Amino acid sequence: MTGAGWPPVDEAGLFGLDNLPYGSASRSGGDWFVAVRIGNHALDLGAAFRHLSPGDADLFSDGRLDRLLATGPRTWDRVRANASTWLSDGQFRPVLQPLLHPLDSLRTRLAFTVGDYVDFYAAEQHATNVGQMFRPGQAALPPNWKHLPIGYHGRAGTIVVSGTGITRPRGQYRGVDGQLAFGPSTCLDIEAEVAFVVGRGTALGQSVPVADFPQYVFGVALLNDWSARDVQRWEAAPLGPLLGKSFATSLSAWITPLPALAAARRRPPVRDEPMLPYLQDAEDPWGLDLQLEVRLNGALVSRPPFLGMYWSAAQMLAHMTVNGASLRPGDVFASGTVSGPGRDQWGSLLELTWDGTEPLRLDDGSQRGFLQDGDEVVIRATAPTRDGRLALGEVSGRVRPAG
Amino acid sequence: MTGAGWPPVDEAGLFGLDNLPYGSASRSGGDWFVAVRIGNHALDLGAAFRHLSPGDADLFSDGRLDRLLATGPRTWDRVRANASTWLSDGQFRPVLQPLLHPLDSLRTRLAFTVGDYVDFYAAEQHATNVGQMFRPGQAALPPNWKHLPIGYHGRAGTIVVSGTGITRPRGQYRGVDGQLAFGPSTCLDIEAEVAFVVGRGTALGQSVPVADFPQYVFGVALLNDWSARDVQRWEAAPLGPLLGKSFATSLSAWITPLPALAAARRRPPVRDEPMLPYLQDAEDPWGLDLQLEVRLNGALVSRPPFLGMYWSAAQMLAHMTVNGASLRPGDVFASGTVSGPGRDQWGSLLELTWDGTEPLRLDDGSQRGFLQDGDEVVIRATAPTRDGRLALGEVSGRVRPAG
Repeated sequence: MTGAGWPPVDEAGLFGLDNLPYGSASRSGGDWFVAVRIGNHALDLGAAFRHLSPGDADLFSDGRLDRLLATGPRTWDRVRANASTWLSDGQFRPVLQPLLHPLDSLRTRLAFTVGDYVDFYAAEQHATNVGQMFRPGQAALPPNWKHLPIGYHGRAGTIVVSGTGITRPRGQYRGVDGQLAFGPSTCLDIEAEVAFVVGRGTALGQSVPVADFPQYVFGVALLNDWSARDVQRWEAAPLGPLLGKSFATSLSAWITPLPALAAARRRPPVRDEPMLPYLQDAEDPWGLDLQLEVRLNGALVSRPPFLGMYWSAAQMLAHMTVNGASLRPGDVFASGTVSGPGRDQWGSLLELTWDGTEPLRLDDGSQRGFLQDGDEVVIRATAPTRDGRLALGEVSGRVRPAG
Repeated sequence: MTGAGWPPVDEAGLFGLDNLPYGSASRSGGDWFVAVRIGNHALDLGAAFRHLSPGDADLFSDGRLDRLLATGPRTWDRVRANASTWLSDGQFRPVLQPLLHPLDSLRTRLAFTVGDYVDFYAAEQHATNVGQMFRPGQAALPPNWKHLPIGYHGRAGTIVVSGTGITRPRGQYRGVDGQLAFGPSTCLDIEAEVAFVVGRGTALGQSVPVADFPQYVFGVALLNDWSARDVQRWEAAPLGPLLGKSFATSLSAWITPLPALAAARRRPPVRDEPMLPYLQDAEDPWGLDLQLEVRLNGALVSRPPFLGMYWSAAQMLAHMTVNGASLRPGDVFASGTVSGPGRDQWGSLLELTWDGTEPLRLDDGSQRGFLQDGDEVVIRATAPTRDGRLALGEVSGRVRPAG
């Protein structure tokens, strides 16, 4: 840190004082600590609190966000205000400088213990594309699609932190000859999604109205819902996907707190079907102007816009709990594949290559229907702030051959 | 305990020395402890180990099974052998007697922290019945049904211990007039199931062959997968059930260790479709002769036989992990509704009343299509032992009106 400016923001300002995402990090061989990212550095937040505000230091003693998540927005705001003040006011520099570590000197792990994981299906273009491919001859959108945000539970235990290698799954599927086959998936895909991290839990029987969204949701992160399309297509009727998705789901190491996205809030699109009262947007709705990009081996293959998603995250949460299902700190729910109207805005290879029939041509001249071993996928996103843009922490993963 | 025989087994012998299920219990206001059930008493196992085998006492220090689950079959066997020896040999009576508490003096909670929860659909009769009702005009069994055990992830965070009241969920569904409706479910149902509790976890990328089932599965319990059929029917295509199931799932307070069911092992039924090698039964297969019974307000309404399930629990586990999905201690997977060929052997009201069109007549003269507020459901099961029968811990719940 010697010689760098204060605060140590990155040149593009994407991880500046208006962002300050949280993670769990450690130096080689060291203890895990709750980290706040500023530029290309991470502040050991627990240590900072021990020095500057010891009354709250215990919130970070497990080296993950678990305790902080469980507290609620008043504490979330206080912690964020402290971090922001300390990093912006030069008087704290002597205390904080030894607690700031370059990101490339750190390991990261999942920032919190995941409770349940629900994956939605909230982009109309994605649902339409998938319907056309998976259920040809039927209406592309299922009849319930515009009446409720469709979702399903995914496997919480196989959510992995960004950067984790993704082993190509084996499974059974119908081969091109219609015969049952077993082996490594030949249609390994990505799904570029936005995930929401539940902070405060609820009691069984309680519902979370749309307007109460920020009382319960701590933050936002990018998610890649890796999918074995051949396995998924064969297994998924009538109870939904299981093994086609459960082998791994990648989540960013950095969770951007919800208040950092205040300037990204927009009205959701006009809906063409009436919605039941419990799903109607609050006065100040939760459309979010996040601009995603998907890179495959470095090549930009898609720029999915989160703005325009039919269902907002606040509606997803209201729906998920309208039956009284309880929430736990660390529950994750994700948007489903983010796909905009343009073909260069689709968030999966299934869509981008139209089920492999129209391969992508990469910079090195090679073609891709689905992922090959060794391929690396990186999903990034930015959002407007009051006077610039911020970035969500990227989510990346490289495909390993089947074991 | 004064005056009772030793060991203090129940009159019917259903919770004798060959059973010894585990739970987590506490006396009013006291600490939670790991309990072993014998007859109508529970032994404070941690306290027993502190007196008699302190080297292992730390396994029980969290008052739940979490630490024990994570160890593996060698430790599971040692703990069970100790408990069995201490409870059968009168020389230990002076030590153990103060540590034995009548069940009716104890509260129970979930015996372990639930990881992920997967619910299968493994009874051919159940899948056939549901297919006929939910997808009339199509083949009752989906084309994949005999090639793989179909399953989906349920909500782990709303698994509740037996005895917990079940609040009728609200939700959206299509009314009888075809119009979209919202309100308390009018088709609240049960599903009588058998659940398997994973002990040892696995690494990401690892699969569990059928033959390794007892290396990873700690025990067995009864489960009631409460279902709101109206909600489920409307939401479930194409990604499966979510809110129709996620409001509550009840699990027995007592987990019967797998070795207690050694005498209940049988060959599964002959399958009429070839199975891929990873699903083929091991030499000593895991069909289980469990006889369930379902009581509604005391009246016996069904006797579903677990023997005859198309897919064994060992096949479910092999399938669940064939893609490399990892397991965690405390993962739960359940069989799906247990329904035998006879109409009095069906494990849900959906089937027993043929979607409410042929109501059950209860002892008090009242009729039931689906559950009414105040109804109590109790599911029990027994299994053969070498010289008698044992019982799984019951799973019960009473319906509360929508909040």
